Amino acid sequence: MELVEKMLGGDERSLSHLITLAERNAPEVPQIMKEICSRTGRAYCIGVTGPPGSGKSTLVDRLTAIARGKGLSVGIIAADPTSPFSGGAVLGDRIRMQQHYLDSGVFIRSMATRGSLGGLPHAARRVTKLLDAFGKDIIILETVGVGQTELDVVEAADTTLVVLFPGGGDAIQTMKAGLMEIADIFVVNKADRPGAEQVVGELEAMLSLNPKDSHWQVTVLTTQAINNIGIEELYQEIERHRSVLESTGQLSLQRHEQLKKELVRAIEQGVSEQLSRLMAKDQNLVALSEKVARGEIDPYSTAREILGNRAMLKDWLSKLKDEG
Amino acid sequence: MELVEKMLGGDERSLSHLITLAERNAPEVPQIMKEICSRTGRAYCIGVTGPPGSGKSTLVDRLTAIARGKGLSVGIIAADPTSPFSGGAVLGDRIRMQQHYLDSGVFIRSMATRGSLGGLPHAARRVTKLLDAFGKDIIILETVGVGQTELDVVEAADTTLVVLFPGGGDAIQTMKAGLMEIADIFVVNKADRPGAEQVVGELEAMLSLNPKDSHWQVTVLTTQAINNIGIEELYQEIERHRSVLESTGQLSLQRHEQLKKELVRAIEQGVSEQLSRLMAKDQNLVALSEKVARGEIDPYSTAREILGNRAMLKDWLSKLKDEG
Repeated sequence: MELVEKMLGGDERSLSHLITLAERNAPEVPQIMKEICSRTGRAYCIGVTGPPGSGKSTLVDRLTAIARGKGLSVGIIAADPTSPFSGGAVLGDRIRMQQHYLDSGVFIRSMATRGSLGGLPHAARRVTKLLDAFGKDIIILETVGVGQTELDVVEAADTTLVVLFPGGGDAIQTMKAGLMEIADIFVVNKADRPGAEQVVGELEAMLSLNPKDSHWQVTVLTTQAINNIGIEELYQEIERHRSVLESTGQLSLQRHEQLKKELVRAIEQGVSEQLSRLMAKDQNLVALSEKVARGEIDPYSTAREILGNRAMLKDWLSKLKDEG
Repeated sequence: MELVEKMLGGDERSLSHLITLAERNAPEVPQIMKEICSRTGRAYCIGVTGPPGSGKSTLVDRLTAIARGKGLSVGIIAADPTSPFSGGAVLGDRIRMQQHYLDSGVFIRSMATRGSLGGLPHAARRVTKLLDAFGKDIIILETVGVGQTELDVVEAADTTLVVLFPGGGDAIQTMKAGLMEIADIFVVNKADRPGAEQVVGELEAMLSLNPKDSHWQVTVLTTQAINNIGIEELYQEIERHRSVLESTGQLSLQRHEQLKKELVRAIEQGVSEQLSRLMAKDQNLVALSEKVARGEIDPYSTAREILGNRAMLKDWLSKLKDEG
């Protein structure tokens, strides 16, 4: 594909175009991914998640500055609808970000549809690969940490930061929300606010109760991103995590699992798309669907019967083939 | 099924057991749903979503009290990990809820795994149907409004409340987070706090910009749930929405669409489960998956090739049949 050629040659416009296709999971995606496959696997991906108001964007901004200072190129994907990267910020944030917007070593992409109706899950993985193939050294994924979006970050990230702040709900609630399970490093940001020590204490208490991972002990760091305090230490901690993952073989293990899951999901996605097409056309299915809609039969036992009906499945297969 | 018989006869223990099966999407679900199908469609379902800290649980508590005062039975499903119904509350909330825990006309169920890793999406629909068949007049679904969980509420609810509060992020961010699209009624709770009028103003400004739905104009109400202020008005507004949905035929239209989607999802779920089994056993697939994991081929074009391979699909079909 010409678009891929251009992107691999360093053209940012082509990269943007490809990202749009990847976000939408366009029909071209398999071909694109095939062509960039040999160029991926080099970038390191940092996921940054946490509740709204925790200062994730400022933290991403500061981490980016450090990476740039080390001569590393950075790609930022903001799947956080409240992030200034996604356009959801107050004016001050936007101005602050401009240093990176004007830096050709930083590529910033918001995934505006995420967290919204119609937002495609799992898009982060595809977009990450494009930035990887484009040659970015560090990829930062920023997302709001509730529900599906946090899982997407874990799927795509090598190191996951969970950012909390004093006054943002107690740590026990955080654990319940599932963030406890996904953090490699906890960051208590806005640490100058009252209650910061308490949050750190609660997190550490909970971590001490949890069974430790054999290769990595989750740590808790404090930062004041807005004042640039604690960021250098955080960056070093991320590097420490990376070197542990690399030296233990865990990094390649994680990435292997990510790729296998991607294959399963891509097959499921394909089946699901073909199913939607059939649902609109196949007379048997349309009739069953109408009966379900009228409440005459229930969706679950109907689905089971359809899937157990070999003749119907064979009929589908031949139709799918006809569709190309 | 004996369990279903007992539940339909009014046994709460059987209901609890069935809900657990529905949450897990256990193999018994199709049979259960088939047996209760004719008993569903009577309950009215209210979804309550919004960011953490907006006071959703207190609001649910107050709305429940009003419904009970009218002699209506209530089922509450809390899929909000920070909800006191789910056990994520401070002691005071728990004590407050006890009036309902001790009331046999109120059934409370937390879906603790939701919002957490491993939480099954779409479970709300299945659980709602069980409460409906059990005979609850009103079902209230409480969930945190970010990402996938908010979509689940819309799927299952007849009327969706989006609860905001002053100081919880500005209304523009809310819109971006997708809550704007799903609200039937906006509730600005904690309205005694400074900034409440501003939130109301912003919401109304945005609503005036949005194209109006033909059957319902989204409204904005203020409440102080903790002081029981504005709750009666909110309850009346929900009833007004219900009567509009009923008189315009929109309610049955919505429910028809919900059921059709459920059928598609149930088929997809079935295909996906069978696929997982195959991925672990089929030699061709295992080999392809390993190649993907090693980065030799990419997951997307591999998935496309698998789905385009008629011989392989036929081979699968015969294997699926053997599995039963």
